[in-house]
Amino acid sequence: MLMRKVAIVGVGMTKFGEDWKRGFRDLILEAGKKALEDSNLHGAEIDGLFCGTMAPGPLIGQEHAGALLADWMGLNPIPSVRVEAACASGGVALRQGFMAIASGLHDCVVVGGVEKMTDVSGADVISALGGAGDQEWELFPGATFPAIYALAARRHMLEYGTTEEQMASVAVKNHLNGSHNKYAQFQNPITIDTVMKSKMVASPLKVFDCSPVTDGAAALVLMPLEKAKSHAEIPVEIVASAQASDTLALHDRKSLTELNATKVAAKKAYEMAKVRPSDIDVAEVHDCFTIAEVMAIEDLGFVKKGMGGKASADGKTALNADISINTSGGLKACGHPVGATGIKQAVEISWQLRGQANGRQVENAEIGLTHNVGGSGATCAVHILKRAD
Amino acid sequence: MLMRKVAIVGVGMTKFGEDWKRGFRDLILEAGKKALEDSNLHGAEIDGLFCGTMAPGPLIGQEHAGALLADWMGLNPIPSVRVEAACASGGVALRQGFMAIASGLHDCVVVGGVEKMTDVSGADVISALGGAGDQEWELFPGATFPAIYALAARRHMLEYGTTEEQMASVAVKNHLNGSHNKYAQFQNPITIDTVMKSKMVASPLKVFDCSPVTDGAAALVLMPLEKAKSHAEIPVEIVASAQASDTLALHDRKSLTELNATKVAAKKAYEMAKVRPSDIDVAEVHDCFTIAEVMAIEDLGFVKKGMGGKASADGKTALNADISINTSGGLKACGHPVGATGIKQAVEISWQLRGQANGRQVENAEIGLTHNVGGSGATCAVHILKRAD
Repeated sequence: MLMRKVAIVGVGMTKFGEDWKRGFRDLILEAGKKALEDSNLHGAEIDGLFCGTMAPGPLIGQEHAGALLADWMGLNPIPSVRVEAACASGGVALRQGFMAIASGLHDCVVVGGVEKMTDVSGADVISALGGAGDQEWELFPGATFPAIYALAARRHMLEYGTTEEQMASVAVKNHLNGSHNKYAQFQNPITIDTVMKSKMVASPLKVFDCSPVTDGAAALVLMPLEKAKSHAEIPVEIVASAQASDTLALHDRKSLTELNATKVAAKKAYEMAKVRPSDIDVAEVHDCFTIAEVMAIEDLGFVKKGMGGKASADGKTALNADISINTSGGLKACGHPVGATGIKQAVEISWQLRGQANGRQVENAEIGLTHNVGGSGATCAVHILKRAD
Repeated sequence: MLMRKVAIVGVGMTKFGEDWKRGFRDLILEAGKKALEDSNLHGAEIDGLFCGTMAPGPLIGQEHAGALLADWMGLNPIPSVRVEAACASGGVALRQGFMAIASGLHDCVVVGGVEKMTDVSGADVISALGGAGDQEWELFPGATFPAIYALAARRHMLEYGTTEEQMASVAVKNHLNGSHNKYAQFQNPITIDTVMKSKMVASPLKVFDCSPVTDGAAALVLMPLEKAKSHAEIPVEIVASAQASDTLALHDRKSLTELNATKVAAKKAYEMAKVRPSDIDVAEVHDCFTIAEVMAIEDLGFVKKGMGGKASADGKTALNADISINTSGGLKACGHPVGATGIKQAVEISWQLRGQANGRQVENAEIGLTHNVGGSGATCAVHILKRAD
């Protein structure tokens, strides 16, 4: 039984992209400041910080990012916690902030996510991201993440007849959404042809099936729901916070074409929020590769298993279609600064529920969902947010 | 206001030391299994995992340690979270587990800490640990942690007349305690002469003023206090869980001879537990260097500021003296697998409160404290534990 209800009262994020002028600490500082301003708070009310970041050790030689964050936001001596769950670091950090408020130990916390990825070589990024998989069985023998997801794509094609063009349609839809988002790394619409003719990375996944390497940060301010109305015109209640685990290595799974952690976390989240998949108006799902979005919309129950590719190609996941998926542009077009992604998803859903998603607004959005995956599915965090005005 | 009371019902740890035969996953598995057995649980009751580990990325090429832990403990699909706060990763993870139970979101969690440090070269360990400080202002310009704590030692000697022999007495006392602890890395008593004649690392700190590089893991099982009695003969209530932050870089602090994060966290913890420093029977404090224990016993209020060195030399912190400090042998003799240390401290205090600290038992121990520091003091976690039979 949850002890206390929790709401989002402020959100903020940096422009995602290759940011050559600013470092890790500048990015999180900007996102945090924007979230505070958005909630009409000045800092004194904040009594805790939670930050999701995956690999600042390998990427910038810095661990202890929680303390760094409190320091640079000028919020010492409040407690500050870094959470890491690979690409689900943001979603898992959000769950910690949620528990901090629900427990009664904290009354107002900032939850942030950040990654600075472009300060090192591409090979170093691949090695750092490889740490999200199984070091002994995947990373060291040479399996990169595009290769791991390519296995899932090939199997999905075999089992369900999914086509490369259907997967490409996910990228096309997300680029179109991203073209309406000023925070997105890529704001250019593309065509199926762009994807199909782009360079092969790990067959059948081409460059335009893959999310990019990105710098960026995002932040949220959380409060008990009962106090939220005095800080936000439209508070966004977190009606469910769920997380699940699966084997770290892909070869230990029963299936290559579904993520059990997504299914378990989604089931728990729907139960906790007392809603069904058909009640969700807008969702940000983890499309690190186009095949990942195809599997996500199936595993979350938005479409029947195996029909994710066809649903995308048929336009059912486009803005204001059956269910609006990845209105921000998703990881594909908005960009994927790994630790920031789970928080950015909640920022986007908050904007949608408040009616502030200029140019990409889902009509009458009342309930939204975020779906954040770590590694090849070893961690999944699902949150359900609800307009609470 | 805390929503629900929390207790420790099981504890376990590996032998600390240089473990050439086993890896990261073996260590945490052993500690977790021991903690489960200690609480008469078999796994099905566990609904969440929290793991403190500092630098598996740089040290073993593995991030996503939470998922790894769930996988190797056979506890999929429950949520698993890795927390990182440098050398305070364990203490901060314990606080997350505490909030998970207090929030009502979880009913039984395992909190673990682990570090596998001896698989890489000494230079790589120094670089990885350097990530606990300020990368831009300390690590890259070449400040190592012995050098940073040496500055504190020199200043403490200047301000308070603390002597090298007084600091050495901390190491002598901790080695004597460690000689009664079968889990300790070093179980050999030493003399003041051993310390004084050992090799200089960063003047005035010699090798025997420094904690070693260690492999090891420790784990706890937490439950709501109301359910604890059916799982533990003597439950240990966590009556306070507090954490505080300070600047990441040493040069930004007002003082070199006190840790403000310790003072703030301790004050909060004493208030939350409604006890005074003089009520504490036994404490595990963060003696990464001998000067760190000197400052800790001052900042925690056990002795007057500036008197930490003298109190140690006078034997006031010895087993069953005024206050028993670091009965496990501390970081100095028990060893310091960084992510595991904060959890090991709670394991030792639990054994003390249950009367199971063979050969090093504090008489009538009823209230104990753990003090876990990250970096040079940018993070501090303080927990107060109480016998609850």
